[in-house]
Amino acid sequence: MAKQPQPRIEIISTGTEILQGLYPDTNAQWLSQQLAGLGLSVAGHAAVGDSQEDLERLLEGMIRRCDVVIISGGLGPTVDDVNRYAIARAYGCELVEDEQAVQHIRDRFARRGLPFVENNRVQALVPRGAQVLYNDWGTAPGFILENDNGRAVLIALPGPPRELQPMFDRWVRPWLLERYRLDTKLTTLTLHTIDLPESQINAAIADLFRADPDVYVGLLAAGGKVDIRLTARGFDEMTIERKLSGFRRQIEARIGAESIYGCDDASLESVVGDLLRSRNLRIAVAESCTGGLIAARLTNVAGASSFLLEGFVTYSNESKTARLGVDPNLIAQHGAVSRPVARAMAEGVLRVSGADLGLAVTGIAGPTGWTPEKPIGIVFVALAWGNDSTVIERRFLGSRNENRAYSANVALDLVRRHLLHRGGKT
Amino acid sequence: MAKQPQPRIEIISTGTEILQGLYPDTNAQWLSQQLAGLGLSVAGHAAVGDSQEDLERLLEGMIRRCDVVIISGGLGPTVDDVNRYAIARAYGCELVEDEQAVQHIRDRFARRGLPFVENNRVQALVPRGAQVLYNDWGTAPGFILENDNGRAVLIALPGPPRELQPMFDRWVRPWLLERYRLDTKLTTLTLHTIDLPESQINAAIADLFRADPDVYVGLLAAGGKVDIRLTARGFDEMTIERKLSGFRRQIEARIGAESIYGCDDASLESVVGDLLRSRNLRIAVAESCTGGLIAARLTNVAGASSFLLEGFVTYSNESKTARLGVDPNLIAQHGAVSRPVARAMAEGVLRVSGADLGLAVTGIAGPTGWTPEKPIGIVFVALAWGNDSTVIERRFLGSRNENRAYSANVALDLVRRHLLHRGGKT
Repeated sequence: MAKQPQPRIEIISTGTEILQGLYPDTNAQWLSQQLAGLGLSVAGHAAVGDSQEDLERLLEGMIRRCDVVIISGGLGPTVDDVNRYAIARAYGCELVEDEQAVQHIRDRFARRGLPFVENNRVQALVPRGAQVLYNDWGTAPGFILENDNGRAVLIALPGPPRELQPMFDRWVRPWLLERYRLDTKLTTLTLHTIDLPESQINAAIADLFRADPDVYVGLLAAGGKVDIRLTARGFDEMTIERKLSGFRRQIEARIGAESIYGCDDASLESVVGDLLRSRNLRIAVAESCTGGLIAARLTNVAGASSFLLEGFVTYSNESKTARLGVDPNLIAQHGAVSRPVARAMAEGVLRVSGADLGLAVTGIAGPTGWTPEKPIGIVFVALAWGNDSTVIERRFLGSRNENRAYSANVALDLVRRHLLHRGGKT
Repeated sequence: MAKQPQPRIEIISTGTEILQGLYPDTNAQWLSQQLAGLGLSVAGHAAVGDSQEDLERLLEGMIRRCDVVIISGGLGPTVDDVNRYAIARAYGCELVEDEQAVQHIRDRFARRGLPFVENNRVQALVPRGAQVLYNDWGTAPGFILENDNGRAVLIALPGPPRELQPMFDRWVRPWLLERYRLDTKLTTLTLHTIDLPESQINAAIADLFRADPDVYVGLLAAGGKVDIRLTARGFDEMTIERKLSGFRRQIEARIGAESIYGCDDASLESVVGDLLRSRNLRIAVAESCTGGLIAARLTNVAGASSFLLEGFVTYSNESKTARLGVDPNLIAQHGAVSRPVARAMAEGVLRVSGADLGLAVTGIAGPTGWTPEKPIGIVFVALAWGNDSTVIERRFLGSRNENRAYSANVALDLVRRHLLHRGGKT
């Protein structure tokens, strides 16, 4: 088939919970990002509830004016799940049961050792003639419905992001690349920064926002970290890459390369994991206010056993003494949330575990446990190695869980900066 | 004016950045939450880019079928800001400059010590006859456009949330309360379930979905847990409460009260924390594949020190032996991911810590480390108390991080069920 020019694409999300404001419409956002990455623009988003009538009306207008309509949600086994019926009505086609999809659903229940409930069969109903998109991440398959009467191609995907996203990657992206002449390319480079306020980054790079009409610069702040997103458009990848590297160098020069901990899919924990692995170092962690969060972040990284030796959640004073050998007099004198205790915890976990680096955190996450000298949000992070150690102090103004997450970020970043400066075994 | 019955309301957000997926549509979400709080439901959301043609077409359909359309964004001074022109065309009315709005914009520039740039005057253009909503939080005013030809009332608000939100509170909420009979109240009760597949819950309560036109029943599955959301509408709170309790009792009878771990804001960890506290019991945790996640979940709960004694992240075999006293022969014989090792970890952490309950998890989160007998997603969770213990096995089919999160859920739920059955100290 000859490739087509730029199509008009719209996206529909279904689910009453979106209209009740319980969740933002993140599927429409994610799909739009993916399409932008292919150089395809999206002409509209719409969300409707679990009303077959509303969905039919919406579809009727949309499939007349669009080339492609992507619809997510409403394919499950419950009475809320009206999408397949609305689609069949809007296209005037019937629904048929796909045998392979039924088997797929049965297999999934069997693998989990669960009984197959008969109402799950409705998930295998697809419009006659549609290409069935089998779902390895859940039960309901999706489908691509093409027809000869000038209406839009309809792509139906399940609603849960953990199914929708891999289904898009497996089935929809290749279909779009095959069908459309995607010669304008769009590439996004996201630079992750930590420990710099958004306003400071904004002031430092203000002129870059309008420096090149083909490079879009955006800032997004979340959890004490700021992402700088660069989106470049062009006809060839070399030009795009050159522009993105140019912007990156400018930004590094203005805010300091070390403030950028990674780009795109890199996380603080994956960067720390890579640094530890490449230097053949092992770390052990002792956590008080973060309560396991740092160990949990490090074990997010596949293969963490090669760099994480062990972790201790020493929430009580007794546990700090019993596990890490922290002197009870030190705690009595300075308090459990103090610079000397943080240092003693880091040195203790280093000694007890035999690791190369000992990381420790103690702080007051809130909402209780504070004093005028030790306010909510105060945190001490200590790192010990060889016969040396360092302690930093921070004060956060968030909620309990935000303060815990920020503390984990600062702790991981302390390890990162230490490894950048010191290199190998110490 | 006589008050009206429930109106049909739809919401439009404008801005190319939404269609590029740079941001989720949080204005539509926030407005929907506010309307739900007033007892008003929203029939649809739509987002369009900065295209006057697309917006006109969208408005033409919407203002015919709706009573109220709320539109945000596109009221600024730039060429992207097309909303006022599209609205004037759709309603067939002209735009006039509002003198007070011009003065308001001039004053704002003066207060900030900035020169007044002439293109800012366009922000004072409003449809003739509209009520102008002056903006104390930014430059562009909004407006409410009512007309006599049976079309929807149109409410236009600026896009930045820090302007839109106070503008809604100041102007739109009072207008809605005045116009509509908002003595109907809406209350939502969310029941959180765990360890039952969505399809099984659906089959058990299918008839309840349509049992009462004033009670909406919805299911939402995420992370191995399913929420049952009951939204009841009525004229007095007593009736609503009675209906919600009636539905709750029915659901408990069908799926078992124990499958519901809590409602509304309760989390699995807060429920476990409350149970431990009320029974004066302390727990210690030993984690392999979850790597600190369970301890981090428990320490999400403020005051966790009263029930969490300590935690061990024993990621390596050596650490399982050194910290928990797990026999290396047991690991050699059965593997670190096995029923006997899970039990030995739980018994070990109980003994070492002196807690009342010892909880342990070992599993294969993936993507590596599996064998045919020990596939990715297999997890053993053990709980030890007194001289007794129990081990359960689960198999998950998610990604590494999903499997870790599911494992933490199952572990917390095992503690919850144990405490429900056994009560106090054992």
